[in-house]
Amino acid sequence: MKNQIGNLLYGQSGGPTSVINATAYGVITAALRTKHQIDKVYCMHNGIDGAIHDDLFCMNEVPFHQLELLKQTPGVAFGSARHKMKDYRKDESEYIKIFNVFQKYNIRFFLFNGGNDSMDTCQKIDDYLAYKSYRCQVIGLPKTIDNDLVVTDHCPGYGSAAKFIANTMMEIAYDTQAYSIGKVTIVEVMGRNSGWLTAAASLASLRGYGPDLIYLPEVPFSKERFQADVQTIYDAKKRCLVAVSEGICDVSGVMLGETDLFMDAFGHGQLGGVSHLLANQLQIDAHLPCRSIELNLPQRCGAHLQSLVDVQEAIATGETGVRYALEGISGVMVCMKREMSPAYRLSYFPHPVHDIANGVKTLPREMINKEGNQITPLFYDYALPLIQGEPDTSYQDGLICLY
Amino acid sequence: MKNQIGNLLYGQSGGPTSVINATAYGVITAALRTKHQIDKVYCMHNGIDGAIHDDLFCMNEVPFHQLELLKQTPGVAFGSARHKMKDYRKDESEYIKIFNVFQKYNIRFFLFNGGNDSMDTCQKIDDYLAYKSYRCQVIGLPKTIDNDLVVTDHCPGYGSAAKFIANTMMEIAYDTQAYSIGKVTIVEVMGRNSGWLTAAASLASLRGYGPDLIYLPEVPFSKERFQADVQTIYDAKKRCLVAVSEGICDVSGVMLGETDLFMDAFGHGQLGGVSHLLANQLQIDAHLPCRSIELNLPQRCGAHLQSLVDVQEAIATGETGVRYALEGISGVMVCMKREMSPAYRLSYFPHPVHDIANGVKTLPREMINKEGNQITPLFYDYALPLIQGEPDTSYQDGLICLY
Repeated sequence: MKNQIGNLLYGQSGGPTSVINATAYGVITAALRTKHQIDKVYCMHNGIDGAIHDDLFCMNEVPFHQLELLKQTPGVAFGSARHKMKDYRKDESEYIKIFNVFQKYNIRFFLFNGGNDSMDTCQKIDDYLAYKSYRCQVIGLPKTIDNDLVVTDHCPGYGSAAKFIANTMMEIAYDTQAYSIGKVTIVEVMGRNSGWLTAAASLASLRGYGPDLIYLPEVPFSKERFQADVQTIYDAKKRCLVAVSEGICDVSGVMLGETDLFMDAFGHGQLGGVSHLLANQLQIDAHLPCRSIELNLPQRCGAHLQSLVDVQEAIATGETGVRYALEGISGVMVCMKREMSPAYRLSYFPHPVHDIANGVKTLPREMINKEGNQITPLFYDYALPLIQGEPDTSYQDGLICLY
Repeated sequence: MKNQIGNLLYGQSGGPTSVINATAYGVITAALRTKHQIDKVYCMHNGIDGAIHDDLFCMNEVPFHQLELLKQTPGVAFGSARHKMKDYRKDESEYIKIFNVFQKYNIRFFLFNGGNDSMDTCQKIDDYLAYKSYRCQVIGLPKTIDNDLVVTDHCPGYGSAAKFIANTMMEIAYDTQAYSIGKVTIVEVMGRNSGWLTAAASLASLRGYGPDLIYLPEVPFSKERFQADVQTIYDAKKRCLVAVSEGICDVSGVMLGETDLFMDAFGHGQLGGVSHLLANQLQIDAHLPCRSIELNLPQRCGAHLQSLVDVQEAIATGETGVRYALEGISGVMVCMKREMSPAYRLSYFPHPVHDIANGVKTLPREMINKEGNQITPLFYDYALPLIQGEPDTSYQDGLICLY
């Protein structure tokens, strides 16, 4: 039996997803199981801020039935932060605080869960600890509903958000067919830099309830073409269902939400997104009855509609991170690789965070049709395996049980 | 064995709910089971329009496994209409068309599923058939997410919408606690004339994740008091969660959504609701960071978060309607009565539609606190039994199966 090496510190960063806490569960339970190598398991409160301010939770005494709830708890159970670390060569102050906390708690394994900004933090912490010759394994764990991390096939969090969006789109489509003459319904989906989430709306098409039109950040948006597209559909069907990404840009690459069109009479940026703008404009220009629906936060925190595959992969991501750390690997992110033959199967591999930090993976052009207003079947092949299965979520008195 | 009496016609009307099709299931299967009394079971396409235009579906040959899907299908499977019937003494033209269809199909049982406007239609059809001395039992079946029908304890559709709102509120609350300094999050809930749905957001408080403040149509809305309430909470907690009804009115009874504040620079009413307005104003007046979330259509079509109690009661409502019709009762709505001792138990009784048509039941004042910005525990006692239990919803490839 090996001697204990030291303690583990885990943190969450960036925006919530409905399975980031499943990854926390994977990390915490895997670490607690390896008692002969890892003694204490700590979680940072509010991401890297917890390490800077010596604000940690010790998880060793938390009852197992409570840990189990992490699997079905959306949001960020231990708190998050959007904190961009400076270069330690220019300002070492925060690094010194973090280093003191690492020494105080004998942290020898550091697992940090987030998107591309968080991988940048991983890289910087790993560099600094090497500079201080402090032995500690630094592992990045992917998490983002946007699915925009490079190198990895996909990210935990995407499958559940995609499932929420696909099913909600189907329900909205069914709802909007109630009357013989319908409206133009514009549904706005998250994803500022990539169209993965908006494309997921099209999975509803596999049941005949998908959007008629889809507009993605990957294709420059033309108001004129959009209005013509909608008019054509409306004339034929007396209704039109549109999915639009919050991140659509005009030809010069400026996000529609940041153009003058969005300023109110006081010159303030308006709340409520691009779907409201498009619907208002369409009512004014084309006199079509319109409704706009922003899926908003529920798409990233809808724990009642998790994908079982996503939950299982999120847990495995955390467990794999602990394994890499114990194997002495550092400065890597846990990445995913899929095989599709004979069936969907996922494996994991480590890849240097350096290549991943600050990168953005967009939807490949071949997954978008020629006109830039719909998805091709290639996207279904990619996304469908990720939304499979429904967890046995526990409720009490009709309310989901949270950690 | 009695002789067959004739055929049954069922129709859906008004806005969708996530269990109106469960009531359809109750009607259709109960009617098909009584083969010795009812021969054919028809559904109108697009509500009363289907009867006017001779556009009916015969349900006798639909496979049972397909009928089963009605229980988990939101929206309006047979189509709806918002059609206000005129007084037949003033304009008989549509009544003559309907009467011809009734004679052609030998309709002797007419079951109509909807809200208070639909009960008005029931009343008029019942009156007209009596005037024509045509023997036909007319039964109203309640349906509304708003829960605003009088006489009945509650309405099928409310429990599932309340469950969706309560759980989504809890998930949003959890999500918005991610960062150490939060925002003012204003969540807009449906219900133009009554606060039943908005109040349901407070069920999340039973788990510690409810809204800090609730604003209902029952209490005149003051912008100044609202902003002061929010500021007090924000100062104490560095975040504030608000639930607001789309139907809040100023002291003179004018809905906020219909005041000048909602007109854009072109003088058009803006899409996006009262939550966006309140959030924008709060940013401008109080310089607080704000986010607005409109729950929008998903709250009435979120079949993935049905209440089992609501589904079962919706089915029983349909079955009870068929029973009343066979017993020779006419011109009534199926109403619900609850017992709470020793435990929640529901029974049904018929009540003349005349008393129900066009009435509105608002939230009793004793369910609202003195300040008019929160709910009292009396509401929990009322609403909690209605959101209990989760149906075993069937999915295929991660997508909910629809009728």
